[in-house]
Amino acid sequence: MTSGTNKLRVAILGASGYTGAELVRLLANHAKVELTVLTADRHAGRPLGDVFPHLGGLSLPDLLHIDEVEWAGIDVDLVFCTLPHGTTQEVIAELLHATGHDMVDELVAGRRQGVIAGLAKNVKVIDLSADFRLTDVGTYAQWYGHEHLAAHLQPEAVYGLTEFARDALTGSRLIACPGCYPTASLLPLVPLIENGVIGSEGIIIDAKSGVSGAGRSLKEAMLFSEVAEGVHPYGIGGHRHAPEIEQEVSRAAGELVTLNFTPHLVPMNRGILATIYVNMTDGNDADDLRAILRSRYEDEPFVRVVDEGVVPATRHVRGSNHCLIGVFPDRVPGRAILVSAIDNLVKGGSGQAVQNMNVAYGFEETSGLGQEPMFP
Amino acid sequence: MTSGTNKLRVAILGASGYTGAELVRLLANHAKVELTVLTADRHAGRPLGDVFPHLGGLSLPDLLHIDEVEWAGIDVDLVFCTLPHGTTQEVIAELLHATGHDMVDELVAGRRQGVIAGLAKNVKVIDLSADFRLTDVGTYAQWYGHEHLAAHLQPEAVYGLTEFARDALTGSRLIACPGCYPTASLLPLVPLIENGVIGSEGIIIDAKSGVSGAGRSLKEAMLFSEVAEGVHPYGIGGHRHAPEIEQEVSRAAGELVTLNFTPHLVPMNRGILATIYVNMTDGNDADDLRAILRSRYEDEPFVRVVDEGVVPATRHVRGSNHCLIGVFPDRVPGRAILVSAIDNLVKGGSGQAVQNMNVAYGFEETSGLGQEPMFP
Amino acid sequence: MTSGTNKLRVAILGASGYTGAELVRLLANHAKVELTVLTADRHAGRPLGDVFPHLGGLSLPDLLHIDEVEWAGIDVDLVFCTLPHGTTQEVIAELLHATGHDMVDELVAGRRQGVIAGLAKNVKVIDLSADFRLTDVGTYAQWYGHEHLAAHLQPEAVYGLTEFARDALTGSRLIACPGCYPTASLLPLVPLIENGVIGSEGIIIDAKSGVSGAGRSLKEAMLFSEVAEGVHPYGIGGHRHAPEIEQEVSRAAGELVTLNFTPHLVPMNRGILATIYVNMTDGNDADDLRAILRSRYEDEPFVRVVDEGVVPATRHVRGSNHCLIGVFPDRVPGRAILVSAIDNLVKGGSGQAVQNMNVAYGFEETSGLGQEPMFP
Amino acid sequence: MTSGTNKLRVAILGASGYTGAELVRLLANHAKVELTVLTADRHAGRPLGDVFPHLGGLSLPDLLHIDEVEWAGIDVDLVFCTLPHGTTQEVIAELLHATGHDMVDELVAGRRQGVIAGLAKNVKVIDLSADFRLTDVGTYAQWYGHEHLAAHLQPEAVYGLTEFARDALTGSRLIACPGCYPTASLLPLVPLIENGVIGSEGIIIDAKSGVSGAGRSLKEAMLFSEVAEGVHPYGIGGHRHAPEIEQEVSRAAGELVTLNFTPHLVPMNRGILATIYVNMTDGNDADDLRAILRSRYEDEPFVRVVDEGVVPATRHVRGSNHCLIGVFPDRVPGRAILVSAIDNLVKGGSGQAVQNMNVAYGFEETSGLGQEPMFP
Repeated sequence: MTSGTNKLRVAILGASGYTGAELVRLLANHAKVELTVLTADRHAGRPLGDVFPHLGGLSLPDLLHIDEVEWAGIDVDLVFCTLPHGTTQEVIAELLHATGHDMVDELVAGRRQGVIAGLAKNVKVIDLSADFRLTDVGTYAQWYGHEHLAAHLQPEAVYGLTEFARDALTGSRLIACPGCYPTASLLPLVPLIENGVIGSEGIIIDAKSGVSGAGRSLKEAMLFSEVAEGVHPYGIGGHRHAPEIEQEVSRAAGELVTLNFTPHLVPMNRGILATIYVNMTDGNDADDLRAILRSRYEDEPFVRVVDEGVVPATRHVRGSNHCLIGVFPDRVPGRAILVSAIDNLVKGGSGQAVQNMNVAYGFEETSGLGQEPMFP
Repeated sequence: MTSGTNKLRVAILGASGYTGAELVRLLANHAKVELTVLTADRHAGRPLGDVFPHLGGLSLPDLLHIDEVEWAGIDVDLVFCTLPHGTTQEVIAELLHATGHDMVDELVAGRRQGVIAGLAKNVKVIDLSADFRLTDVGTYAQWYGHEHLAAHLQPEAVYGLTEFARDALTGSRLIACPGCYPTASLLPLVPLIENGVIGSEGIIIDAKSGVSGAGRSLKEAMLFSEVAEGVHPYGIGGHRHAPEIEQEVSRAAGELVTLNFTPHLVPMNRGILATIYVNMTDGNDADDLRAILRSRYEDEPFVRVVDEGVVPATRHVRGSNHCLIGVFPDRVPGRAILVSAIDNLVKGGSGQAVQNMNVAYGFEETSGLGQEPMFP
Repeated sequence: MTSGTNKLRVAILGASGYTGAELVRLLANHAKVELTVLTADRHAGRPLGDVFPHLGGLSLPDLLHIDEVEWAGIDVDLVFCTLPHGTTQEVIAELLHATGHDMVDELVAGRRQGVIAGLAKNVKVIDLSADFRLTDVGTYAQWYGHEHLAAHLQPEAVYGLTEFARDALTGSRLIACPGCYPTASLLPLVPLIENGVIGSEGIIIDAKSGVSGAGRSLKEAMLFSEVAEGVHPYGIGGHRHAPEIEQEVSRAAGELVTLNFTPHLVPMNRGILATIYVNMTDGNDADDLRAILRSRYEDEPFVRVVDEGVVPATRHVRGSNHCLIGVFPDRVPGRAILVSAIDNLVKGGSGQAVQNMNVAYGFEETSGLGQEPMFP
Repeated sequence: MTSGTNKLRVAILGASGYTGAELVRLLANHAKVELTVLTADRHAGRPLGDVFPHLGGLSLPDLLHIDEVEWAGIDVDLVFCTLPHGTTQEVIAELLHATGHDMVDELVAGRRQGVIAGLAKNVKVIDLSADFRLTDVGTYAQWYGHEHLAAHLQPEAVYGLTEFARDALTGSRLIACPGCYPTASLLPLVPLIENGVIGSEGIIIDAKSGVSGAGRSLKEAMLFSEVAEGVHPYGIGGHRHAPEIEQEVSRAAGELVTLNFTPHLVPMNRGILATIYVNMTDGNDADDLRAILRSRYEDEPFVRVVDEGVVPATRHVRGSNHCLIGVFPDRVPGRAILVSAIDNLVKGGSGQAVQNMNVAYGFEETSGLGQEPMFP
């Protein structure tokens, strides 16, 4: 916006992870965006194509160390932040010139000495980490193991589940994109909870994820031979997306909700499938639930409630910003099964971030997200 | 037994499916067994190695059409039956010289004209189809869409979940091997139900299976490109293993139980993972459940209850007759999560069939099943 | 062009195969194209989203049986033909009002009674089958087992390896898109042969393909469990893409060339990798070869010659119309190794078909093909 | 042998890698072997089942740090060494009480202070690293980047391609097991070279490997998402198995041979497929080659030459010690294609090591290796 090209000047912090690469893939086809800064500490000085050969055909600035960016004069409008949790808080506090909190000041002073000072004051931040998703910083501290370093910024963070956040997104300068599992879980759950057709007790979310959700960091458990030809649950009873899902379900229910969330690792690159077991309230059946979801999402470009009997599958959303939702009657009277499918890196990550950008800046909401799913 | 080699003379009907091939793989290393007859209608006349090159190094009789087997004089002791449901009933009625039921008589007369007549009268049958698993033939008719053709044999069929059937297996001539999903579900559930530490209401079984469970028949949905890189549920609310699981859980509970069973297809060859959500009865916690399972299975050669915090994975049982079981506390008070893993073709199929044979004939129960899991 | 929307009106014959679906995926984002007719005989009457749920969000005409299309009045401008070889010949002869050949006339009369008669005379056909790739119809008959039914059309067919066919594409009404393996093989080979830096003797093409290349038809060998966790060659010494590759290499060499082409099936959905072993002519080394390829392709939007030491991988072109080419010195003096990677369904199929359409109609060559590769 | 159990007392150094785990899997079913010592430096103090849950059902000694093993009094007979190259040399020099070389002495003194001193003098070592495969220590230094630290031991090392080494294996105390790629390449090549039916010039080995060949160490390139859904070559022109293959082919040819060896990474856990392009000498055809291989291997328990037209696939040897070999005519006159398939962790690693042990100690050669391949 501020530049001669009349395009939004965008920085991606953490461009060497899968989420960062996916932002580049999507934004490369966005007519209103210019990628101006890409950071990646370990790979600083190299072209992105060295780190992600699939993007080697694009004309992009080389990767920088975050401390090397000379913000003054770059006129960056928007920063996508895909850094690890914790680190993110410090960086964002700086980016927003909001390091009023003592701890952050100290950390920033010691670590980076205010290199971001040159950044314009009206920059927006779209964060893909977990740092600003939890409204309650005490809950953050409990689940992430340390005090929140930018608690003073939390109140202005918008929880960016786009379909439920459009008003808040407009005008916000700090958008916290939901986690991949919460996105897949909340899109089917929230309208049903809000409409009172399902109960808030006894909700069980059995989720299945592809491996890219674990990112590109080195973990033995993510080696090909450790993952291929097998399936297993993880984080049983203790995954950090549980409090995030509960927060939003509680908000919809108007009361505190505790629920089960059990993720599983599936030998595939992309995709999240959430199989959600719910109790219906009196007099409702699966058709009623489907009708409510249909009504809620009929004008949404990316959420599609499938016909009775059609089963959502992750391969039918692969590479796209789509979410498919199906509703099925259970054998047990009074119960129903919701099934949703998204691509964890798109609607569950970078795609939703771009969608939030589009809303925040008044662009066409589908800009850069028009790619149909890729199958097979 | 009856032959000069002093080995059990075994026939496999339906040797060209994955289950049949797996029987051959396991029995090839069984010191007490001689493979005498292999049938496969479409491939009759060919060596098994044509159909399954991985077994091409074995010395085996060529495949026969089931109607070509000259039973008289072969002295077959035991027949493993891996035929499609429905067909199985007729064949087994013949094998057991028990075609007293009118419908079967008619069918058999019309179709095969009693070619099995020459078979010895004391043959045993171990069936891997669904035909004799359901005690109630009305339930069978409801779920399989046709009247049971050998209902008179059902009462003598033993439901061969080995760990719970040893007494009945000895002396039985008709053993119905459990389905793969029921095996994975019942091993953790039955002892807990019997001990009253979990309730029989609200049980949810979210199961994940490899693709070999669908067999080798041609279905578009089982093509590589339709399965790879994705996950989805199927048979939601209506899978035929649901009544089988309910039958055995009801037996353990002493009352009729309806439960949720939702299978998913995972892009891997082998393995079933069952994630089971249960309500604990008052005063019990996950440790209590684990202790009961430990106690129940401590002397079992194939069932292992893993330590607190260890997560069962299908890749840790691949190719073996093992079952791993873990117990986890849920976030929701009063609830627990059971996780079990088996190889669907071994403990969930051919391995359990061999185990049943070992028990029925008084062999060492682990004979032919000593292979450790193969990882990676 | 001929319609009120000012868009090219396009028919896809055979829209229920992977190639057809991929055409839809790409053309859905093409500003100059309107999908007007989709045929699929087995699925006639159903929406495409029934057959390919990933495309269920698009507004498309329902699938028709090819004989039900009422061509008169539809004003179709362009037909993409993704039918099986053999059938294709008849259909295209009709489409082009060129059924002068007796055999075709007879067949058409007997089978479809000229339903295509209403089609405008200036329609173009872009064929993705093998029917018009081989210049010599005798070679066709030898490899495909029957006489060519539209031999009179062969002379006007343009072999649409876009980078080498632009002039011919403009003005042609019959474009034969190259096979996937030939595309991956010819892009590196042709410039080097033409420049005389490699010899035409002793060329060995060891190719590796994903499974989608086999299409969606039911074959036991393409079941998930038959493909996953393994690799094997097929069609050794006799694959139908061999004469096609030889035809084009011979054309470049100015002499008849016989070469080795050995394809392998790899457990992945998409991608072809060609590892090509060549003899260099005197005085040349790998750097010379790379320089020639660089020079040849520097202005090409879809072909990228990677830097020394960078290794092309299929995952770096997945979902895109890109081709990556690398050149490596062999240990054996005087020899070099060429490595190329494409997505078999895009540059090796539907993407190249769209690229050819763009050239033939004077559109921007990258229209509809701007999607970056999807990784992971 | 030396113990009361009358079993061979075996140590495995490096039991926490895939090769070590595979040795345990195979030896667990070997009647003549007792696993006495398992080392794994990073995991010392833990049971093997912690590191490899699939082996958690076995009764095994806990893992030790190699320096903690109190060799005196353990009476170890045989040591399998699966340590990284380089390290291996020092350790083996110690194990064999052969640290006469200055450099080793110094290193050993500094690093481990002779803890192995207590080991019996007649211990044998079967090494699975690359350290003693190359006869010429200069070649070793050139390819592995450092001087060989136990060059004085190299002359007594037996290259353990079992089928060609039986005489030498008996009585040897240092057996160097071949690499996985060399095993797959040499089994088809050596008899043909020896018989003079193929030329030693122009041999091209295009090999495809599963991912377990890279071991369990942390490398970004081996993460699931980096490997799945793609294929690429690596080490082009410079893989360390090239000189090893050349050494043995040269030995068979009686002259120095340089050849092409190009490995590829395939998204599967196990398996190596070698597609080998050769020139036949005058008057020979593919049938002649097949006949020679048949004759050479007809009495071999693990090598099977398949019938004309049958295509070896890695999935048909998975988990077994088998090697399948096929011979095919090329389209190019005078040339043929050899295809071989092995499981890289079995015949290409731990299985061949066990086979060598069996030969060296006079056990039945197939002991512990009787498992049929596992498919699917």
